[in-house]
Amino acid sequence: MTRLVLDVDTGIDDTLALCYLLASPEAELMGVVGTYGNVTARDSVRNNHAVLRLFGREDIPVMLGCEAPSWADLFEVDEGCARFHGANGLGNVDPACYLPDDDAAEVGESRDDTNAAHDAACDGAADVRDDRASAARPSVAAFRDRLTKSVGGERVDVATTAADAALADAAAASREGDGVRFIVDAVRKHGRDVTIVATGPLTDVDAAIRLAPDIVPNLRLVIMGGSLTQEGNCYDLICETNIFQDPEAANRVFRSGADVTMIGLDVTHQCLMTRADADRWRATGTRRGAFLADMVRFYINANEASDPIFLAGSPLHDPLAAAVSLDPTLVGLFDVNMMTETATGNGHGFRGRTIGDPTRLREPRKTAHVALTVDAPRFTARFRDRLAGLCAA
Amino acid sequence: MTRLVLDVDTGIDDTLALCYLLASPEAELMGVVGTYGNVTARDSVRNNHAVLRLFGREDIPVMLGCEAPSWADLFEVDEGCARFHGANGLGNVDPACYLPDDDAAEVGESRDDTNAAHDAACDGAADVRDDRASAARPSVAAFRDRLTKSVGGERVDVATTAADAALADAAAASREGDGVRFIVDAVRKHGRDVTIVATGPLTDVDAAIRLAPDIVPNLRLVIMGGSLTQEGNCYDLICETNIFQDPEAANRVFRSGADVTMIGLDVTHQCLMTRADADRWRATGTRRGAFLADMVRFYINANEASDPIFLAGSPLHDPLAAAVSLDPTLVGLFDVNMMTETATGNGHGFRGRTIGDPTRLREPRKTAHVALTVDAPRFTARFRDRLAGLCAA
Repeated sequence: MTRLVLDVDTGIDDTLALCYLLASPEAELMGVVGTYGNVTARDSVRNNHAVLRLFGREDIPVMLGCEAPSWADLFEVDEGCARFHGANGLGNVDPACYLPDDDAAEVGESRDDTNAAHDAACDGAADVRDDRASAARPSVAAFRDRLTKSVGGERVDVATTAADAALADAAAASREGDGVRFIVDAVRKHGRDVTIVATGPLTDVDAAIRLAPDIVPNLRLVIMGGSLTQEGNCYDLICETNIFQDPEAANRVFRSGADVTMIGLDVTHQCLMTRADADRWRATGTRRGAFLADMVRFYINANEASDPIFLAGSPLHDPLAAAVSLDPTLVGLFDVNMMTETATGNGHGFRGRTIGDPTRLREPRKTAHVALTVDAPRFTARFRDRLAGLCAA
Repeated sequence: MTRLVLDVDTGIDDTLALCYLLASPEAELMGVVGTYGNVTARDSVRNNHAVLRLFGREDIPVMLGCEAPSWADLFEVDEGCARFHGANGLGNVDPACYLPDDDAAEVGESRDDTNAAHDAACDGAADVRDDRASAARPSVAAFRDRLTKSVGGERVDVATTAADAALADAAAASREGDGVRFIVDAVRKHGRDVTIVATGPLTDVDAAIRLAPDIVPNLRLVIMGGSLTQEGNCYDLICETNIFQDPEAANRVFRSGADVTMIGLDVTHQCLMTRADADRWRATGTRRGAFLADMVRFYINANEASDPIFLAGSPLHDPLAAAVSLDPTLVGLFDVNMMTETATGNGHGFRGRTIGDPTRLREPRKTAHVALTVDAPRFTARFRDRLAGLCAA
């Protein structure tokens, strides 16, 4: 059994990663943290609840992670993410619509339940809404004229409004909130017997390390993020989107000394999901299979439209990270000390690029293990089959 | 025995690579091609002659390679190169001054000899000088108002003068000149029983492939150039200087299907030369040892001044490529299909960056083998000892 905490910005392929873990008998999923990235952190929490409910696993706790990058007061999803994941993060498909018939009459109620659980997880969410209504409570952010907003990793400075100030306060609070504390507590309790699988920006992991530096020697981390030997997937082709959201956080994590297995585009671009996989899930004749098939149709269409290299299939980014956390033999790892460049220009490199750390090149201890090769046929078959099994269960 | 052709932009570390091959009993050096880069191609030819003369190996033929990148009419050395290699490419040290005493009286004559050999190798060099004097012969370039000049890889457009037009004609002629033809003939004659070791821009190899595409299936190439998992050494930290000089040529070579072993900064930054190495050569009490020690002093000073990471020693870029061509077990290779980006900006990447080729990521045949690990202690000891042996011989 492998004990895991999953940190996700849910996201279609995050959902597939979550489902892969639910489908894997050797995985013991302690909890799911929802962070910002493909969607807002609150939408990620909502999606995690909805997916766990559809697959009958509401026993797994869902927590709210960081709501904005470490360098920004606020976060807004950019258009590119919505193009790949839909406005709701799940390809504009609602899991509640796929609940079993005997739950259909209760859907309204169910969704209230989901929202209740959501609100409970999003500690302070109600307060934020109150603040927006009253715009009364003084906040740290309110004392500043301007706030820094991340729009999918791009910096935008905005004039401070009372509503934004309240959201900024909530985002600041989230850096020491439930999701971050859950990661800290899990590592403190289980040490190297728990693996943190992070498939979004590394803000939560960075916040956990800053909150509790004592966890570093025991922190086992598998990330989906970065690219070392292949082009990136931001439009500059130099950066990978998860890392680009919060280069400072990624850089601190890489340089913390924590053990990081990096599943980047080097290998995820070799592991492709096709319409045949979706057909297989739909062919189970279940509502869960229909949900997955409908959701991934959006993702496959978006990938095909984005780049001819994805006409052969859509990359299984996050599911590969989940699978490697359970079975490292799926990939070939290159041991290297990594960093993330945080500025662009002469002498600086390129903000958001993941690359070897020159100051630790000749250090014998390598803290990162970057997957450069992958047994793609073995992984993609296992992924397809396990999700089919999960739908049929 | 390993049969080799060395293609160099000589350069201090090119000189060390040449000396390493002269010092290696298992190397059969067929010829040395001088190309532009650290110095002009003509200065590279001059340096090769001078070094071979000092080490008593004037039997090895020296040829002129390309005088400008494939994308430019003219080439000028940039300040950065002169800072690392000196104005003459050899740390402002003149090999003729280190000739044995019994040749001292003949130094003037010797240098005439060297110049004569130089002129013979630089076919057309005299013509160019005549052209510059008379500015009479019509040339292709003369019909254009402006010429494209590479200043160390940076593009500059200049108004056409008669002198520049003549140089541009000579540069164009060099693309099918002696050096390029020597590479073609060597591969046609010996097939995979000759290795081309290129430690400068890939313009000569690209020109050879364009002149004779039939050589590709038999072309065995070891290059010093590029960087895949470490930062670059141009000031943007994204590119490596050899590749940056002619990204189009490098891209065509990577994508030609030819077998390329890439020795990049990933490994050369792990193999450092120190003042103790220079002392060892000087301690042989020979003029050759004094020459090497004096020359590398310039290089070590320049590297120390450029970056704190080189306070521990100066990188042995080109010598490592030479050593790997004789003994591939010195490095660990990652098989991957490579490319060079040729434009900068959204959707393009970064001009001069060496990176995996996404269109051939899932192709089973990998044409490039990128060194990611190196047995640095074994190589640096062998390098120091072999050069000491060469000095004492």
